Amino acid sequence: MSIAHSRRKSKGSAAERELIARFWEVGWTAHRIAGSGSSQHPSPDLIAGSKGRVLAIEVKATNDEKKYFPRLEIDELNEYASKTGVEAWVAMKFFRTPWLFLKTSDLEQTPSSYVLTKELCEKKGCGFEQLIILPSLQ
Amino acid sequence: MSIAHSRRKSKGSAAERELIARFWEVGWTAHRIAGSGSSQHPSPDLIAGSKGRVLAIEVKATNDEKKYFPRLEIDELNEYASKTGVEAWVAMKFFRTPWLFLKTSDLEQTPSSYVLTKELCEKKGCGFEQLIILPSLQ
Repeated sequence: MSIAHSRRKSKGSAAERELIARFWEVGWTAHRIAGSGSSQHPSPDLIAGSKGRVLAIEVKATNDEKKYFPRLEIDELNEYASKTGVEAWVAMKFFRTPWLFLKTSDLEQTPSSYVLTKELCEKKGCGFEQLIILPSLQ
Repeated sequence: MSIAHSRRKSKGSAAERELIARFWEVGWTAHRIAGSGSSQHPSPDLIAGSKGRVLAIEVKATNDEKKYFPRLEIDELNEYASKTGVEAWVAMKFFRTPWLFLKTSDLEQTPSSYVLTKELCEKKGCGFEQLIILPSLQ
């Protein structure tokens, strides 16, 4: 693994741990899915839930103003959520900005990938406090 | 880790992988939860789901006719399932016997632990094919 890749991975894990802690603080459950990203089956990064509402979450963190996602990653998140019957969300941590959450259906597409800009997140996404009180999307 | 502990752990992992594969074969999703057993939060071994029905599962395999569970393990599975609003199940693999599934409420208790006998599983449990067509318990 390159140093740059290793740093990105560790940054991603720290963001996941932080988000998991936030969910538990407010009485939700949240866990990482084992082997996410390397499983032979579509896997979200996290599963979080409360009172029958279950969210499949892909977690991203960046120091830039935008983040590209391989198309497959989001297609697989949607496939997982649709089969299981749970909600599909992207959790986005921009540098020095609170967590923002976007439904996968609100992501913008380029010919080869999805892209998430800070502007789009602020326009169409919601914050943590809003996410946890939304009615179920399923 | 002792050799005996290592063998038990590897047997448990093989059983988990086999069960995960069974779920995917029938169109369900199933994944291991990362850090199950060592997490600071209550964690099931597996999460499996289909069309809005989500199961939190503790997986056990044994060559004996009965298996004891620490009380905390089942209490935490129940806590996780109740907070999240999903079903709590124990998946049991006795040697040369098909998988049997028991609701945690059907486990028998000793003063310090829960115990699962083959006889109890066959009387109160159900097989895989039955498990996946049950109506939601939530």
